[in-house]
Amino acid sequence: MTNIIRAEVVTIGDEILFGQITDTNTQWISTELTNIGIRTVRKSSVGDQAEAILAVLHEAHQRADVIILTGGLGPTKDDITKKTLCDYFGVGLVRNEEALALVTSFFEKRGRPMTDLNRGQADLPANAVYIQNDWGTAPGMWFEHGGRVYVSLPGVPFEMKNLMTHRILPRLQGHFSTPVIKHKIIRTVGIGESFLAERIADWEDNLPPHIRLAYLPSFGQVKLRLTATGQDTAQIDRELAEQVDKVMPLIQQHVFGFDDDELEVVVGRLLKDRSQTLGIAESCTGGFVSAQITKVPGSSAYFWGSVVSYSNSVKISQLGVKPETLEQFGAVSEETIRQMAEGVRKTLGTDVGIATSGIAGPDGGTPDKPVGTIWIACATEQRTVTRLLRLGKYRDQNIQLTSTYLLNLLREELLNQ
Amino acid sequence: MTNIIRAEVVTIGDEILFGQITDTNTQWISTELTNIGIRTVRKSSVGDQAEAILAVLHEAHQRADVIILTGGLGPTKDDITKKTLCDYFGVGLVRNEEALALVTSFFEKRGRPMTDLNRGQADLPANAVYIQNDWGTAPGMWFEHGGRVYVSLPGVPFEMKNLMTHRILPRLQGHFSTPVIKHKIIRTVGIGESFLAERIADWEDNLPPHIRLAYLPSFGQVKLRLTATGQDTAQIDRELAEQVDKVMPLIQQHVFGFDDDELEVVVGRLLKDRSQTLGIAESCTGGFVSAQITKVPGSSAYFWGSVVSYSNSVKISQLGVKPETLEQFGAVSEETIRQMAEGVRKTLGTDVGIATSGIAGPDGGTPDKPVGTIWIACATEQRTVTRLLRLGKYRDQNIQLTSTYLLNLLREELLNQ
Repeated sequence: MTNIIRAEVVTIGDEILFGQITDTNTQWISTELTNIGIRTVRKSSVGDQAEAILAVLHEAHQRADVIILTGGLGPTKDDITKKTLCDYFGVGLVRNEEALALVTSFFEKRGRPMTDLNRGQADLPANAVYIQNDWGTAPGMWFEHGGRVYVSLPGVPFEMKNLMTHRILPRLQGHFSTPVIKHKIIRTVGIGESFLAERIADWEDNLPPHIRLAYLPSFGQVKLRLTATGQDTAQIDRELAEQVDKVMPLIQQHVFGFDDDELEVVVGRLLKDRSQTLGIAESCTGGFVSAQITKVPGSSAYFWGSVVSYSNSVKISQLGVKPETLEQFGAVSEETIRQMAEGVRKTLGTDVGIATSGIAGPDGGTPDKPVGTIWIACATEQRTVTRLLRLGKYRDQNIQLTSTYLLNLLREELLNQ
Repeated sequence: MTNIIRAEVVTIGDEILFGQITDTNTQWISTELTNIGIRTVRKSSVGDQAEAILAVLHEAHQRADVIILTGGLGPTKDDITKKTLCDYFGVGLVRNEEALALVTSFFEKRGRPMTDLNRGQADLPANAVYIQNDWGTAPGMWFEHGGRVYVSLPGVPFEMKNLMTHRILPRLQGHFSTPVIKHKIIRTVGIGESFLAERIADWEDNLPPHIRLAYLPSFGQVKLRLTATGQDTAQIDRELAEQVDKVMPLIQQHVFGFDDDELEVVVGRLLKDRSQTLGIAESCTGGFVSAQITKVPGSSAYFWGSVVSYSNSVKISQLGVKPETLEQFGAVSEETIRQMAEGVRKTLGTDVGIATSGIAGPDGGTPDKPVGTIWIACATEQRTVTRLLRLGKYRDQNIQLTSTYLLNLLREELLNQ
């Protein structure tokens, strides 16, 4: 492809270089760029030093048609992006009256005093196109220089996202004529990356050169991502659909969804379609499964509630687990998990009850039940299914994997009904 | 400083460039490098293309003394890091018998068949020092070339972390003689970045040049990070402690902890110190607060459990909220939140009960109670305190902010006792 538009995404800030914060901005930006046919060819992070910022600007100029910078626009003294952009472009700072009016009204509305630092946020490099930020006090900026587009945005994620969505992406689409890049993602659960690869090897070998495959594993799931490049949206969509049709028979049982369909979204849709309500009993996952379910807007239509029963007394009083069961078999046992799933279903009066109980770690393991020993269960009107997971020694990972396997068990039970 | 050791952290993979996964590795790596006095000067991400990988290797060679690469070592065909390293170093691939034995035993232990793809993971560039990976099938590699150190690690976070912690960081410390870089983080809650900055402006202006300050805001919290560089650990520690002593009187009421003290860790410590137990009633946060509390290992010592009462019927049956209260004032009201906090305390038999109820969004708002209207409460033996939050329109953000403000309310109540 000769007319691919290349982007470099640059984050500025010592806090990212030194590792004090997670950079989620670049991921989001490159996804959005991909969606409008702009290919990210490099991501870079540099610190709050003028030389480092200047160096990455000069390099990015060689590599990319559009350079998106985030960060370093705050009111405090460690933020030097604007001054450095002035040096790079060879211009001075000019107070922008439109920006000043917006900052002023931002503070007036909130009844808060405005400081000189805040007022300084209305100063922009002289060659900047002012991009109004309705979500915060640092304006966005658009520059055209040496045949490249430079965009500078605040690092605060929700301000950056709103500016990109409403102001920058439409402007980029107007400025460039972009090729079509399309992704199709097949989401699988319960099969490892290399086994998946063996199973679909022939199909993978026969993919046409303009369609590429990647394996994206995470916590019990593997996403298969197909990326196609071309000129015609309808044709690309057709080709991707054909490839999906070819590969699906090989992996059907492990596929739970496509594209943005997170497991909790798919499960929610199944519950809604079947007019079933859900209750959750959580021990070792401590609320994580419930938080996953309720991440989905509208989940109140099928999710009634949970009991997080970290202590045995709560298992007994809220879920009706029998004290003699806990005594004889322990909290981490098939007998207990069965009573938890059935108990939460009864207590909350829901159609389905799911449950977790195990040893998430790092402590609490025994020779009999080492860290990573975790029971899950799903109780419906028809039956109760239990499963034993033997996971690793990492607490966070155990909690996440347990959640994935439990939601998948729930999915299978809903499909079996 | 002339003897600063500079690092570049490079992630390899289309999935990162295209935005399909969040890169948490580089953050973790740069934090660990900082802790041993190696300064990350650049982070870069490139795709799974040989030219892109070669380009970043050549550039990093100019900028850094040590180059840490992650990703592209999987068994599947889209992973090309090893072949590209061979090109870069001008060597061939050689099967490493030690690596092969480990991969073989990895599959034998799990009773799973080994594929040719898996076997290929034991092939290493001829100049590689083999770094044993006990946590997965892709070996780590260490190279010395042109006066630089190159390290190549698998992208799977827990494999990478174990390899870095147990094998690579000690090796780097042995290889380089590093200056001392120390961080001190002061964690604040409930005050905005620019107000904090105004309050400590004089102090900030008087910081010595070898101590730098950064503001790291996130979800209702701002971290103040002091970074000091020098030669003598004891002296640097003393200087940082002096600066903390100077600034603390200005911001005392907003400081909840230092360094790695997350809010949930601080709250857990307060509960443990006071031998108090905690129960949680969650409506709009849907389990998120409980998941935060139980992220902390050992939280079972003070956390007994939660009721996630998404539906009104669960609020009534499990928390004892009066039906007439819900009817008259609604689920999102001071009257209801008070009964929820007191109810969960009574139901679960804990010393403290905390609760959330609100409209997280994106739907469910009314003119009276727009999206972002959220009540929180904390009930102790002495009293029940309620607070009304007026947040924004973003569901995720509302859930996270509510959790932060509720944990801070709990912290204040525990300190007031």
